Amino acid sequence: MAGSRWPVASPGRRRGPELERAILDAALEQLSTVGWNALTMEGVAAGAHTGKASLYRRWPSKADLVADALRTGLPQIGEIPDGGSIREDLHLLCVRTRDVMHSRAGEALRSVLHECDHKQADRFHGLIWSGLHEPAQRLIRELVLRGIARGDVRPDATGPFVVDVIPAMLMYRAKVCGSEWGGAEIAELIDEVMVPLLRA
Amino acid sequence: MAGSRWPVASPGRRRGPELERAILDAALEQLSTVGWNALTMEGVAAGAHTGKASLYRRWPSKADLVADALRTGLPQIGEIPDGGSIREDLHLLCVRTRDVMHSRAGEALRSVLHECDHKQADRFHGLIWSGLHEPAQRLIRELVLRGIARGDVRPDATGPFVVDVIPAMLMYRAKVCGSEWGGAEIAELIDEVMVPLLRA
Repeated sequence: MAGSRWPVASPGRRRGPELERAILDAALEQLSTVGWNALTMEGVAAGAHTGKASLYRRWPSKADLVADALRTGLPQIGEIPDGGSIREDLHLLCVRTRDVMHSRAGEALRSVLHECDHKQADRFHGLIWSGLHEPAQRLIRELVLRGIARGDVRPDATGPFVVDVIPAMLMYRAKVCGSEWGGAEIAELIDEVMVPLLRA
Repeated sequence: MAGSRWPVASPGRRRGPELERAILDAALEQLSTVGWNALTMEGVAAGAHTGKASLYRRWPSKADLVADALRTGLPQIGEIPDGGSIREDLHLLCVRTRDVMHSRAGEALRSVLHECDHKQADRFHGLIWSGLHEPAQRLIRELVLRGIARGDVRPDATGPFVVDVIPAMLMYRAKVCGSEWGGAEIAELIDEVMVPLLRA
């Protein structure tokens, strides 16, 4: 009914996971607006409408909080349903991987790496590995095996380097060439490189 | 005859290109030993047995000197003679590219990028592009065209992404996976990825 509302808890009454999620969201928001260097525990606490003590109870430092915000904020590539061909399957995987790179947490992760010092960078590079590259490689391995079973991928395409090509190309073009991965580029990558490399 | 010597100019009498080469060599030597942050114009001048004025006459800042030392010190990949097959040609190209990455200037460039701040990093990333990636891509394009003419490369392997695969893979494994490119890995890259991708 118009005007009716469920009772809403005031921000001060949030507990546990709900408060934690609000703090992690506020941290991502701060990263997107003021960046890594200017982000403070005070600013995040204010953004989450809570006190600094709530943050320090959970994360001993700004780096710990930000790492957790990035780790939990990064979307998953997700399962790739069988699209009937390795071409369709890898295309969807590339689009999803690109979307993770350009998600709010993905962009924040890139800007943190651009701002933070080299000691901290190792930790954030680790997040890119475990949150993006490693899952992408594991999925590509599954898609290749599905293609072999389906018959449109050559049976010997199981070497360790094959699963590196897509993550390597996505990173290379974004980092070294400074180019975007639009729909046309993804389609070209699949048709020029991945399909010839894998076809039966 | 034992004991006889050609007259040798004293270091103080070196001029022009000879002195310049000695200074650039001393800069690379300092990078390899003390690193970017601790490198000083004084230290390089001492290493080259010359005065600071000789350096400042040529390079207004440490960053200019180091960029020039890296640019001129980076070996070239060189021409790739026709080895009779795309497999042999690309194998040699990969070995040579890997060797440029691991040359004294290549290692120094990596350590500078690890130490310097982000503003300077853009300049040094530019050196990697113009001294390594761009020449590698140009050579790969030549080798692919030679393979098409020879008949062991498919005629439609001329899209823009094909020439990115080797530089992307070399960088990915070195940077993201933190792995070395030994002879066995290079052979696998060629046989697992490049030959299937290109074969007629």
